[in-house]
This record gives sequence, C-alpha cells and structure tokens, in this order.
Amino acid sequence: MKPYVIGIDIGGTNTVFGIVDARGIVIASGSIKTAKHSKFDDYIDELHQEITRLIQTHDAVDKIHGIGVGAPNANYYTGMIVDGVNLPWPTPIPLAQTLRDQFGIPVAVTNDANAAAIGEMTYGAARGMKDFIMITLGTGVGSGIVINGQLVYGHDGFAGELGHVIVKRNNGRLCGCGRTGCLEAYCSATGVARTAREFLEIRHEPSLLRNMPIEAITSKDVYDAAIAGDQLAIDVFNYTGEILGEALADMTVFSSPEAFILFGGLAKAGEMLLRPLRAAMDRNMLSIFKGKPKVILSELKEADAAVLGASALGWEAK
Amino acid sequence: MKPYVIGIDIGGTNTVFGIVDARGIVIASGSIKTAKHSKFDDYIDELHQEITRLIQTHDAVDKIHGIGVGAPNANYYTGMIVDGVNLPWPTPIPLAQTLRDQFGIPVAVTNDANAAAIGEMTYGAARGMKDFIMITLGTGVGSGIVINGQLVYGHDGFAGELGHVIVKRNNGRLCGCGRTGCLEAYCSATGVARTAREFLEIRHEPSLLRNMPIEAITSKDVYDAAIAGDQLAIDVFNYTGEILGEALADMTVFSSPEAFILFGGLAKAGEMLLRPLRAAMDRNMLSIFKGKPKVILSELKEADAAVLGASALGWEAK
Repeated sequence: MKPYVIGIDIGGTNTVFGIVDARGIVIASGSIKTAKHSKFDDYIDELHQEITRLIQTHDAVDKIHGIGVGAPNANYYTGMIVDGVNLPWPTPIPLAQTLRDQFGIPVAVTNDANAAAIGEMTYGAARGMKDFIMITLGTGVGSGIVINGQLVYGHDGFAGELGHVIVKRNNGRLCGCGRTGCLEAYCSATGVARTAREFLEIRHEPSLLRNMPIEAITSKDVYDAAIAGDQLAIDVFNYTGEILGEALADMTVFSSPEAFILFGGLAKAGEMLLRPLRAAMDRNMLSIFKGKPKVILSELKEADAAVLGASALGWEAK
Repeated sequence: MKPYVIGIDIGGTNTVFGIVDARGIVIASGSIKTAKHSKFDDYIDELHQEITRLIQTHDAVDKIHGIGVGAPNANYYTGMIVDGVNLPWPTPIPLAQTLRDQFGIPVAVTNDANAAAIGEMTYGAARGMKDFIMITLGTGVGSGIVINGQLVYGHDGFAGELGHVIVKRNNGRLCGCGRTGCLEAYCSATGVARTAREFLEIRHEPSLLRNMPIEAITSKDVYDAAIAGDQLAIDVFNYTGEILGEALADMTVFSSPEAFILFGGLAKAGEMLLRPLRAAMDRNMLSIFKGKPKVILSELKEADAAVLGASALGWEAK
C-alpha cells in the first residue's frame, strides 16, 4: 500500500486539501477559493495544479494511494454532486470521474458529514466503534451513520440526512429544504440565532443580546452571552439542547448506536448544550436503551477535520 | 449443508414451530400453548418433545442445520429474552443456550419483527433487496431494518424499535412503553381501535360502529365498516395512514431504503391504509428522496410467516 492519501473538502467558500499519512498526520495542506471559477473545469484545473505542486514539494510523487473528497450532496455510488447547494456550477457534476481523469489515481467521494464520520472512525473519537452516529452542527445539521462498521449510504447513496427529521410536526420553522419543522431549523448555528431572535421578541427581560442589532446576532454571540450568565441566552441553549436530545432519543430506536459524536461550530458550546441535551435524551429514551448511548464531542482538530475526514475515504478508493 | 432448519415463533398465547427446507417450504409444523407452563424449563421440555416427534415423523433426524427463534425482546447477541412482555416466566430468560443444550444443534434468536424481515429477505417480497425496512402492524408496531444486506442489531442487539419513534411530541397517547406519542399508539391494530373510539366520542354523525359496544370495537370492525362505505371508519384509516406516511418519510432520511414492507393484521387493510399513507409520505418526503422508497405488502403467507421468518435465521445459526 502506498503511504499517503489526499483529502479534499469542497465547501461553498473554500476548498481545502492535504496530504495525509496512515497515522492521520496532515503532512502538507493548502486551499483555493471554490467560487473563483465560474466553470467547473477551470476549478478542477487549478485544484489539480495546486495539489500536484504540493505532492512534488513533499516528495510524494507515486506515493498516493487514493483521493477522498467530501462535498455537499456528493454521492458515493455515482461519484456525482447533485443539486449542489452553494456551488457555482450546474449540477449534476461528475466529480469523481473528473478527478480520476486528471490525477490518474483512485477517487472516492461522499458528502461532508459522511466524510467526518469516516474520519472520526479512522482517526478520532470513534476508533474501535462499529455503531455510532456523527452529527455535524454547523450552518446546517448533517449526519453520518455507521452500522456494523460500515457507513450507511442507503439504496441511492444519500442516506443519513438526519438534519431533516421533523422535530415540530405542526407550526414548525421553515427549513432550507422547503419543508417545515426540520431538526436543522432549530439545532444548527443558524437555528440558535433564530431562537435567540424569537426569544428577544417574545420575552421582555433585559439581555446582553439586546445591545446588538437583532438581525446580526450569531450563535457565537448567544454563547458568549450565556457564558456571561445571561439567562435569555442560557435558555436558548436549553431549548436547543432539549430539541436535540429528544431527536437523539428518537434516532436511538433506529440503530441503537454506542455513541453520538457531535462536531462543528455549535458543538463548541460544550456543556452549555450538552447538559440540557443529555437531560432531554434521558427523559425521552425508550427504557430498553436508557443510559446506553454516549454523547461525546469530536476529537478531530477543527482545522484538520475536514481534510482528515475526506482523506480517510481515500484509503478505500478504487 | 444439512437440508432443513427449524423455525420457532414464541408468542404470548401460542408457540408455533415448523421444519423448513431451503426453498422456504414448511414441510411440517405444530404448536403448543406458551402460557400453559408456569416454569420455563417445563415449557422447553414440552417444546423439545413436540419438535423431536415432528423431526422423527418426517425422517429429518440429523438433517437439521440449525434452529431460528423469534420471540419478544429476544437479543441476537446474547441469546436472552429481557423484560419479556406477555411471557409468564421471570426474565432474563437464557433462550438460545437452553435450546442449544436440549437439541444439541446451533440456535439463533431475535425478536419477531427482525425474524419477519429476515424471512422476507430470504423467501418473500425483499428477495434481492439490500436496503429495506420491515414494519409489522399487529397488536403493536415492530420493525426489522436491513442495511447493506445485514439486519441492524445495533450496539446492544436491540436496534429497530421503530414502533417507538415519537409521532406526537405534545399531548400524545399513552403507549405501552410508558411514554406518550409513540407510532405504536396510533398505527397498530389497537391504535386504530383507539382512534375509532376517539372519533365516535368527538364526532356526532351516524356510523355503523355505533351499533356495537364502544369498548369491543376492533380494527377489523373498523375495516369492515370502512369497506361498507362508513365515512367515520374511512376517516380512521385516513388518519392512521397519514401518521404512518409521515413516519415513513422521516425514517427515509435515516437509511434511504429501497422499500418499506408492511406486514401483520393491519396491513391486510390494503389500499384503505396505503392510499392515505402514500399521499402523506410523498407530501412529507425530503425532495432528494421523493418518489424513491416503495411501500409494498409482505409476500409471506400469513399462516407460515412467523415460522418461516424465524427459520430463515436458522441457516446462519452457529
């Protein structure tokens, strides 16, 4: 087996990539602007050039086993990006095939949350686990489900969209997916900011959050206020944690995971989120599962996580 | 490989068993009363005697590859029945070990819904499918989930309790599990009868169902009235189908199955249930999955299904 893999994480703003060894050390990395090129082929050309330079500089020519890519709505089975949210090119995009043609080495693609789950299993908090669920709490809510040591892709390659389970069946918030009441509309960073704005309108007590323009409030602002003891901000996290805890209890009856692993910006709220989450999860858990699934935070370094997760897929690329 | 397996289905009232060949033909079957013996060992003695007689009568001595058992709350990993609802013996019950000791051949156990899923995959509507979800609609609601061609047991062996996803987060009906708002409280045969009683109290129009004592109404009565054109009874099925359709749409984001396979008494309502179910499922489906998962009825013969499902597990018993 060749000693390195390439990990590529394609986001709406930046594309980050790196050369990773078998122990999960990122030995070199770089990035380009995703949206700079209006043509997909031009984007791939620049990506190919930059990665090739990185490979040459680090004496890794002919030492790359495979390339793993995490990208929004990327399908493991077909290698295509469909309905690529936030990407400037028309879909479907033949991502895996184009990279395979350019680099002449095996390529595997999946969505970013699935890549994160594979990364966690290979290098992080899920090492040794055969059954766990990764929940990514960022701008949206994503998930990667591992059962019997295998990532769940489902019949069509798109399984594991747990950000879109319905948590409010009636009068739920509008979600980016066009439906209402999805988990993502409540338990993402954006959801936390929406909850704060709702609470500020409904409630009338003083709050540190009233010192800033209401539309500019971010989940980080809510966190800072909560840490400073602001009750309204603390209640926003209680509300968010409760909904997420109820949802995780519901997911448990599906695959009975050993652990839920939380990742992403909102997971950094730590105990502020985890305390109400664990309480709600326990209160809503079917008795046979009570006290069983752990809720833990990702162990991947934030800066490397996206590249590491994608790179782990490179080991199984064909 | 020896040519036969034994399938045993342990229910609260009856225990049914049979000798099954590799094509799924039940070549001989029998049953005993489950609750006749207050001691588990006496029950196993009678079961052993009866099955041994069946084996001898049908010239199958030394031709049995393994025994598969479906029983409430039976755990595939440990071979134990825990918290065995409706069974007259103290739990935990060492089911697999006791049978192995008595018969001297390999034994595998799981819960009844998982057994049904394995049966469907081996002999029924799910032949050739690698990703599907079996939903059993009987007195309760059970499920067996198959992903990548493998039954999902989860970390502790109890995965796949989809009758206990919460479909009404607030003011939901009390479920047998002690929580409120579970799918089982609405979409089981008992749930349909409860809905009918609720509708009869709330609504004031005439209904065929008013001709019988309200507490005696069964899901079969509701079905018969609906078939006879009774609008209240039809609305009961619309309500039930809608809740089940919403729930199946939610389950789809988890494992993106090729099909949901419905089994059990309530599934016999056919289009009366399926029409509102499919409409609600489509209306609530995340766009990426729209129109994809099929909803089909079990192809296992009702009389043989329990034994067939359990027997299929016998092929993989160790």
